Amino acid sequence: MYVLFEGVDRAGKSTQIELLQSALADLIVTKEPGATPLGQKIRQILLHEASPSALAELFLFLADRAEHIQKVIKPNKNRIIISDRGYLSGIAYAHVKSGIDLEQLIDLNRLAMQGVEPDLIVFFSLTPQELRKRFATQPLDSIEQRGIEYLLRVQDIMKELLKRLDRPYIILDATKSKEEIFHDILPHIRKHQ
Amino acid sequence: MYVLFEGVDRAGKSTQIELLQSALADLIVTKEPGATPLGQKIRQILLHEASPSALAELFLFLADRAEHIQKVIKPNKNRIIISDRGYLSGIAYAHVKSGIDLEQLIDLNRLAMQGVEPDLIVFFSLTPQELRKRFATQPLDSIEQRGIEYLLRVQDIMKELLKRLDRPYIILDATKSKEEIFHDILPHIRKHQ
Repeated sequence: MYVLFEGVDRAGKSTQIELLQSALADLIVTKEPGATPLGQKIRQILLHEASPSALAELFLFLADRAEHIQKVIKPNKNRIIISDRGYLSGIAYAHVKSGIDLEQLIDLNRLAMQGVEPDLIVFFSLTPQELRKRFATQPLDSIEQRGIEYLLRVQDIMKELLKRLDRPYIILDATKSKEEIFHDILPHIRKHQ
Repeated sequence: MYVLFEGVDRAGKSTQIELLQSALADLIVTKEPGATPLGQKIRQILLHEASPSALAELFLFLADRAEHIQKVIKPNKNRIIISDRGYLSGIAYAHVKSGIDLEQLIDLNRLAMQGVEPDLIVFFSLTPQELRKRFATQPLDSIEQRGIEYLLRVQDIMKELLKRLDRPYIILDATKSKEEIFHDILPHIRKHQ
């Protein structure tokens, strides 16, 4: 079972993944970008390269995604895999940066993913107020600096994609406490154990 | 003017590019992969990474190509640019490795190239006999080791692509002497100076 955790930065995905790792045995936790040796190198480029073109960046993410599906997701499909990010953020960020339309980006991602799509998408939704609050207190990295408005736009596109991708999903109110959110998620994962 | 020099390894492309650099002023010589800072990092990954999946490799080449077009070809289109490799090898190698059909690969490459295609493709064609001879005398790198038959198949696909891509091209008999080949190429480049 391939479960995709999605949402903009600071929505609380990592915290919930840690709680699940403590609660459930035999969970495979992975991420994009950077879950494979090749992905690590791509992640380094993405984090540190001075302004690659939007298209080059799109293809780097797709290379990471293709390798991740091939080397991590496919061989473990009979176990519970939780991935911190995947094609939902991939498509949304690429759309905002490159202007390529969503349908073409969905096709490109499906090519990279070789027919393997998530069995469940767990989406962390933040209100604009909460997003501003969370970003006011910590130093910003290069993606985060692009601003709150940008992240809100990406979040809107992710929600639009949830409807279009035709995969099972749940939307969580990420402004709730971590205990409440965990309580909301756990039954969805447990029933597949 | 964007001129693409294509052909399998050891067909003599680099030798002719050097001769042109000596003969013509104001030539921009470039290559794929690795002509930009981002491309250099991608090239390092492609040369040294242990067995990336065929799809991941395809997307890495497309990232390099997108960056190359954006940062090198587009800003210099009013000069004579000679590129050592480009989408012709890109599509042919990807087709052989990934099995993705040629039309889909052409579409992916046109997306990466943002509507910029070569004004001329100079293709170096080798006979099977000559290819075997050239590979018998030098140590082989990882791509070359995949064998002569593999390279001949790639060459056949490149020729098929020359017909399909609908761009001006010339096919050179790469078994000729370097002086003869240079004599064949020069008028095609000179008339655009």
